[in-house]
Amino acid sequence: MTKEDLPMQLFYSPGACSRASHIALEETGAKFEAIRIDFTSGTQNSPEYLAINPKGRVPALVAGPGTLTETSAILAWVAQAHPEAGLAPTDPWDFAQMQSFNAYLASTVHVNHAHGRRGARWTDDPAAQEGMRAKVGPNMTACFTYIETLLDKGPWVMGAQYTVADPYLFTVSGWLKSDGVDIADFPRTSAHREAMLARPAVQAVLARESA
Amino acid sequence: MTKEDLPMQLFYSPGACSRASHIALEETGAKFEAIRIDFTSGTQNSPEYLAINPKGRVPALVAGPGTLTETSAILAWVAQAHPEAGLAPTDPWDFAQMQSFNAYLASTVHVNHAHGRRGARWTDDPAAQEGMRAKVGPNMTACFTYIETLLDKGPWVMGAQYTVADPYLFTVSGWLKSDGVDIADFPRTSAHREAMLARPAVQAVLARESA
Ligand SMILES: N[C@@H](CCC(=O)N[C@@H](CS)C(=O)NCC(=O)O)C(=O)O
Ligand SMILES: N[C@@H](CCC(=O)N[C@@H](CS)C(=O)NCC(=O)O)C(=O)O
Repeated sequence: MTKEDLPMQLFYSPGACSRASHIALEETGAKFEAIRIDFTSGTQNSPEYLAINPKGRVPALVAGPGTLTETSAILAWVAQAHPEAGLAPTDPWDFAQMQSFNAYLASTVHVNHAHGRRGARWTDDPAAQEGMRAKVGPNMTACFTYIETLLDKGPWVMGAQYTVADPYLFTVSGWLKSDGVDIADFPRTSAHREAMLARPAVQAVLARESA
Repeated sequence: MTKEDLPMQLFYSPGACSRASHIALEETGAKFEAIRIDFTSGTQNSPEYLAINPKGRVPALVAGPGTLTETSAILAWVAQAHPEAGLAPTDPWDFAQMQSFNAYLASTVHVNHAHGRRGARWTDDPAAQEGMRAKVGPNMTACFTYIETLLDKGPWVMGAQYTVADPYLFTVSGWLKSDGVDIADFPRTSAHREAMLARPAVQAVLARESA
């Protein structure tokens, strides 16, 4: 047995951004081990986990050639390594647009959300962290107002084709409630969520993450 | 003349993260028009520019098929659309690692830097913005301490091959001084900067951006 034959390992935390990679892997039908990282006990900063991902974050994907981090990179790789699953556009420009969508979620929408619970990353001042929390709802509302304009084709982010952008949007739209935003204000995002919940891979991952 | 024959247009602002895409395009030798967006007069939020990029940010790349935004997506597309320039690894795993590096710059390092001058994105409270500014230096120091561990092969981010990760690192390391961080504390990042400054494409872009 060579290293390439070992099943992949995904390090995830329930409900975290790792859910996107978790669903994408499940959609491929590939064999992988889902390993839970418990944030409440700070496992992401244990020496054992920092040896896997020195950034102390999930997701991290251990595959034959090594370890891969960052949601948008994992999603694109999962799609490209499993072409038979059809999880990314083959046209280069469409692929780039999918990556642009995922990069926006990672660098803007996820970051806006993180200012609610992870404000200590950017300031040590508790009053300033409180000031940040106040803007999470308005910022997420602005982001999803923009995202609604991108979902004009549907049913999926890229239109007719289901891609790895879909589990990522599903993951981030799942945070709206805790951000104090009513998803019902965003009809296309709501419809996208319903369509996702009907998929067996999504159901399997939600069951595993809440087990 | 079809739309595909028109030269590409890159919307940039001097010194901003758009510099990475600007250098990458210059490295390909392709014909493109560099269009300056003046932040001091708020051009990024003018109706004309919002029609191009509703996010009100640079970079935006207008190419034959439409408009592409987000640095990491633009960089990957520029490399893939100009394979003869060899600006990305052809091995899928190595390509994914390059994307992971770029995603980290976009979602973590750039975001940490932005808390210095763009704190109003995340809080309306001036005292809280001040609290954020205090953590920019320490956060950038932590990020570059980690980045140094990734630059163990050199001379480029991916080792022997120069890729689109290099103009992006060059762009972000150029912000350290204004973040109150001495680049001399990071010998590999410093050497990377020197190697970049020797490249004709980098010199051409720096001259154009400061003209
Ligand atoms: N840019 C990274 C962000 C990863 C990230 O922030 N993950 C969060 C969960 S959503 C985490 O691990 N947080 C643990 C912590 O901050 O201690 C990505 O897109 O994968
Ligand atoms: N996630 C985007 C970020 C783009 C961004 O924030 N650009 C900045 C310049 S570095 C900008 O346009 N700022 C103008 C503003 O905030 O008004 C990317 O990676 O391209």
